Amino acid sequence: MTMYNILVTGVAGFIGSNLAKQFVADGKRVFGFDNLCRGNLSNLDSLQGNALFSFEEVDLSDLDAYKAALMQVMKTESISEVWHMAANSDIPAGISNMNIDLRDTFMTTTNTLQLMKEFSIRVIAFASSSAIYGDLGDAKLVEDIGPLFPISNYGAMKLASEAAISAAAENFIDRAYIFRFPNVVGIPATHGVIQDFIRKLKATPDNLVVLGDGTQQKGYLHVEELIDAMLFIRERACDKRNFFNIGANDDGVTVRYIAEQVVGTVSPSASISYGRGNKGWVGDVPKFSLSVDKLHNLGWKPKLESAQAVARAVKQIAEQEQSE
Amino acid sequence: MTMYNILVTGVAGFIGSNLAKQFVADGKRVFGFDNLCRGNLSNLDSLQGNALFSFEEVDLSDLDAYKAALMQVMKTESISEVWHMAANSDIPAGISNMNIDLRDTFMTTTNTLQLMKEFSIRVIAFASSSAIYGDLGDAKLVEDIGPLFPISNYGAMKLASEAAISAAAENFIDRAYIFRFPNVVGIPATHGVIQDFIRKLKATPDNLVVLGDGTQQKGYLHVEELIDAMLFIRERACDKRNFFNIGANDDGVTVRYIAEQVVGTVSPSASISYGRGNKGWVGDVPKFSLSVDKLHNLGWKPKLESAQAVARAVKQIAEQEQSE
Repeated sequence: MTMYNILVTGVAGFIGSNLAKQFVADGKRVFGFDNLCRGNLSNLDSLQGNALFSFEEVDLSDLDAYKAALMQVMKTESISEVWHMAANSDIPAGISNMNIDLRDTFMTTTNTLQLMKEFSIRVIAFASSSAIYGDLGDAKLVEDIGPLFPISNYGAMKLASEAAISAAAENFIDRAYIFRFPNVVGIPATHGVIQDFIRKLKATPDNLVVLGDGTQQKGYLHVEELIDAMLFIRERACDKRNFFNIGANDDGVTVRYIAEQVVGTVSPSASISYGRGNKGWVGDVPKFSLSVDKLHNLGWKPKLESAQAVARAVKQIAEQEQSE
Repeated sequence: MTMYNILVTGVAGFIGSNLAKQFVADGKRVFGFDNLCRGNLSNLDSLQGNALFSFEEVDLSDLDAYKAALMQVMKTESISEVWHMAANSDIPAGISNMNIDLRDTFMTTTNTLQLMKEFSIRVIAFASSSAIYGDLGDAKLVEDIGPLFPISNYGAMKLASEAAISAAAENFIDRAYIFRFPNVVGIPATHGVIQDFIRKLKATPDNLVVLGDGTQQKGYLHVEELIDAMLFIRERACDKRNFFNIGANDDGVTVRYIAEQVVGTVSPSASISYGRGNKGWVGDVPKFSLSVDKLHNLGWKPKLESAQAVARAVKQIAEQEQSE
């Protein structure tokens, strides 16, 4: 009998660690790879010693190292599918140095595909992003909208990865799952606006300085719901290329709301100072509205609204930051 | 006074060589780079010795070599824009080895962007492809259609390149021109169905064997018109991201028509044998219809229909093949 074994790349990261825990909880055998550059082994503490989980530190942008790690696994076990979560998650870093997204997002994808071909692994699930849509103004971002002109290297290398996966699906991949993430919040937080605000406030507890005027609005999904949605799609969708926006069921919340939640939780007496304009940094997309109708039609809806997801994550991340 | 100097990558190839000749004819100073892998120096014979033209053999997928070649130019001259035509042009080759399009199409693009940033060159024109659209069934392929799921590595790495250029346009590029080519015919032919047929017929002059049933239909544009269209768009369009399909003004011609033209020109008494199905190879898109309304609205239309462009190219390529 072939076990149902899964490779999770970027397993020590925010999404990857939550995903691995869920797979293991579901009784699946998980092999986790991570370069531990942005991810952290401590995110996997609860899986240490679990016979269903193995970890290997490897740089997936290095094809030879990646192949060696995979061959080691394949000596005794088979892998049925790859959940490719490894990527750069720091959008601003990728603006100043385009090699970061190129290497950590795109080359890890092409290497994954190359090895899947070589080892005949035929199912891939990929963490894409709503950033592939770029700035389409007020348009409702349905999955088949165009044109696709990302405005950050982060979004560009996610789109490039989708393109490579799509071509592979014509060739040696049986089924591809492309999840276009919104902003995801929760723990273990490795980056993002909530963590930024909490850390700023720890440094200067009487005032929180916010980039931009705080009117920027986005939908937020809690990571627990994101995992649930991905597994739901994996179970139910059965096209060759399954591509879904995953997101909140509302128009989102403003940066102002997040700042207020953080202040309320961490340092209630602090004031908040806002900057000008509604872009925090180059490549950051102002208010947009991600359509999740396709996912609703498949049968999945989030239980938490953006505001609730953020509020919950603020409490969790504040706790995480305190214990560090 | 700053001269209006242009870097043409892939200058020894089919499109690049025609482009360089037109620029020089227009009095522009052209620096041409090519790795001479698919391109051939003989394509540039008419430019040898012309003071407006310089050639450098360099592998543009090698960032250090590319940078060194560019620095050599920049010692004495400035470059105002890059026409990035270097790419893999062999779709089937890229199916069996995904590294070919990755290296020759995508990495040459990211290296070009990286060096444009470093040397403050702010205008790029890019040879994209209708292959970015993948197989959208009977849909009219307007420029802003979606979703974009290419079915070949060729198309995938063209889309990936567009994505990288788009992100750069948000950052350090003032103006990007993205030309989505149809099938282009003419000389110097380096690949393509007409040349394939002529060579097959030279080998077996009494019978031409065609892959597929010959009903596959595509629009074809003559390379002289393609160059004309690109220069027209460069002159007239002034958005940050200018993206245009360039194509014939009709629904195209079938492979059967091309086979008959070739037989009629090269070996009139030969028979033609067809295979089955309407895909010649994995990743080859069956009949599609590229919308050129956007380009028409800008003011440009081709003078030749697909059938005329093919007929003309068949004569030209037959002559080229005879003289080789």
